[in-house]
Amino acid sequence: MNILNMTLEKIEEIDHSLRDKTQKRLDNLTKPQGSLGRLEEFAMQVVEITRDDNPSMKDKIIFTMAGDHGVTEEGVSAFPKEVTPQMVYNFIRGGAGINVLAKHIGARVVVVDMGVAGDLSAKDSNLKIKKVAHGTKNMVKEPAMTKDEAIKSIEAGIEVFEEEFKKGINIVGTGDMGIGNTTPSSAIASAITGVPADDITGRGTGISNDALRNKIEVIKDALKVNNPDPNDGIDVLSKVGGFEIGGIAGVILAAASRRIPVVIDGFISGAAALIAYKIEPKVKGYMIAAHSSAEIGHRIVLDYIGIKPIFDLNLRLGEGTGAALGINIVDAAVKILKEMATFQGASVSTKIKNPKVPEKVS
Amino acid sequence: MNILNMTLEKIEEIDHSLRDKTQKRLDNLTKPQGSLGRLEEFAMQVVEITRDDNPSMKDKIIFTMAGDHGVTEEGVSAFPKEVTPQMVYNFIRGGAGINVLAKHIGARVVVVDMGVAGDLSAKDSNLKIKKVAHGTKNMVKEPAMTKDEAIKSIEAGIEVFEEEFKKGINIVGTGDMGIGNTTPSSAIASAITGVPADDITGRGTGISNDALRNKIEVIKDALKVNNPDPNDGIDVLSKVGGFEIGGIAGVILAAASRRIPVVIDGFISGAAALIAYKIEPKVKGYMIAAHSSAEIGHRIVLDYIGIKPIFDLNLRLGEGTGAALGINIVDAAVKILKEMATFQGASVSTKIKNPKVPEKVS
Repeated sequence: MNILNMTLEKIEEIDHSLRDKTQKRLDNLTKPQGSLGRLEEFAMQVVEITRDDNPSMKDKIIFTMAGDHGVTEEGVSAFPKEVTPQMVYNFIRGGAGINVLAKHIGARVVVVDMGVAGDLSAKDSNLKIKKVAHGTKNMVKEPAMTKDEAIKSIEAGIEVFEEEFKKGINIVGTGDMGIGNTTPSSAIASAITGVPADDITGRGTGISNDALRNKIEVIKDALKVNNPDPNDGIDVLSKVGGFEIGGIAGVILAAASRRIPVVIDGFISGAAALIAYKIEPKVKGYMIAAHSSAEIGHRIVLDYIGIKPIFDLNLRLGEGTGAALGINIVDAAVKILKEMATFQGASVSTKIKNPKVPEKVS
Repeated sequence: MNILNMTLEKIEEIDHSLRDKTQKRLDNLTKPQGSLGRLEEFAMQVVEITRDDNPSMKDKIIFTMAGDHGVTEEGVSAFPKEVTPQMVYNFIRGGAGINVLAKHIGARVVVVDMGVAGDLSAKDSNLKIKKVAHGTKNMVKEPAMTKDEAIKSIEAGIEVFEEEFKKGINIVGTGDMGIGNTTPSSAIASAITGVPADDITGRGTGISNDALRNKIEVIKDALKVNNPDPNDGIDVLSKVGGFEIGGIAGVILAAASRRIPVVIDGFISGAAALIAYKIEPKVKGYMIAAHSSAEIGHRIVLDYIGIKPIFDLNLRLGEGTGAALGINIVDAAVKILKEMATFQGASVSTKIKNPKVPEKVS
């Protein structure tokens, strides 16, 4: 709890002291005011988060956190559980979607075993072992994890962030891997937002209608059995969460404490963002939602927190794939602020102050 | 007309012979089927356009075409006309939004004087002089250009494309610069789609309510005076168009004739896409709409052609800025197809064929 508390103490409200100066610079760039739309908004947000009006975007890190879920016993996923460790090895070898997209945007992927069921070995690789336990318990029968394990998972996320922060981080993306993890994510989303499981539960990796009906019942039962306190992020995480979800929540809290922009991936990262937001609402200002996922509950989660996604490409892979593309847009936005010429610098005329509008057209 | 006709003759329907093979590859990549959403769609489109199942995205070119508009006499823009050549020099020096975003995505910008009012000199620069005339005529009083000039502007766009094609082009983005050019673009959009000027005309670079009302009247008058034939793209272009709009239409037609994907920028490029589409509807399959612009008529234009934008970032700058970000997403999509591991290659288990769904949850 010590690491978590120390991190929470460092999270401050977003500081607006550079706002006017930055707006003036944006308005002086050789373009009509506001014509770069949300790019200007993201540039402003990065300046305000970092308190640096010339922010660097050099070191981009995507944390892809992996964990297994006891609830897969209930037939909630279209893929077998062994895919979690198989995909971790795929991440390490560079063959997964997140590897391709991270390379595309010039980011480094840090893979973390937060609680994969099997024991992973990966010497000399970019895999970090922070295993809290060998998968969660089946949340239909008991809490997914103890309160201590929930805190431990968040603190492991903080530790991982801090280890990389020492090497340099300018922007962070979150990512997940864990067969079955849309089920705890839907349970978290339902518990915290109050939206019934029926309206917040999707098909994850692609289950049938029958399996979807079963998944919804599983989530309802898990919420009934465990009765999490919707205002206590740690309680929700321990009762119906997952280790990788706790780890992502830890990364979000740590990023906010270090004033680093954190780009949130899809539905699982959104559930982790809900946990982080419930623990410390001030994290909201540090988050940028990459995209609106195909998973139906995602938009509800983003609306609850009050963050607007950058794009909607109908993605539902996770791993941090959407976050990678989101980071790339934020990177572009910061370059606009830093690299464009001003009206004065480029000798371009500004807007007509009192344009002559003919009384009547011929 | 010779160059145009030769180009039109080369435009073929999109060939679907690589579809099944490509879909199989996409489905075998280590991810749930379809989980990369529209990225998979863009990868497929590039394969089908290029007829290459291992398409290169090495050479990315953005054509930023500039022209002036006689209709600026009517007070339709918030910026003075001299900004057109000033911005062309800004493009050449690398200080504009398109320069920053093209550099971000690894693209080259080719700037073309299609019909700027003043004479531009730019030795040893990336500026191409293809001036059809020193700005269009005032379309409220007479046709913006002759039919010969309209054809000449399209053919100049084709020529510029062909000159660069010799050096290598894998994907193209369109862009525009021309003070006043949302006015002809709205007129083109209204003429072709049949949507009244009131519902298709926006604020361009940011005009007042009074100026917007005046702009709408100007467009209505121009359409009344010139009465363009909505089914004749060249007639619409000549009566209420612009030289940079003709040039962009030429680039689109040339790209289709060479089976190169062409990423369409915002509202002005959309108007050019309408012209190209009316001249040869087969171009539709070669176009990818980068974004939905803040300019209200843009969505109507895209719906008319039947192409769905990649994103909506509330952009309204033009120059090819949205196209640059769009190209970057398409580039990512192609990398997914080419670089991701397959289930077999990465030893990852595939989807459960007949997943056991419990009859009733405990």
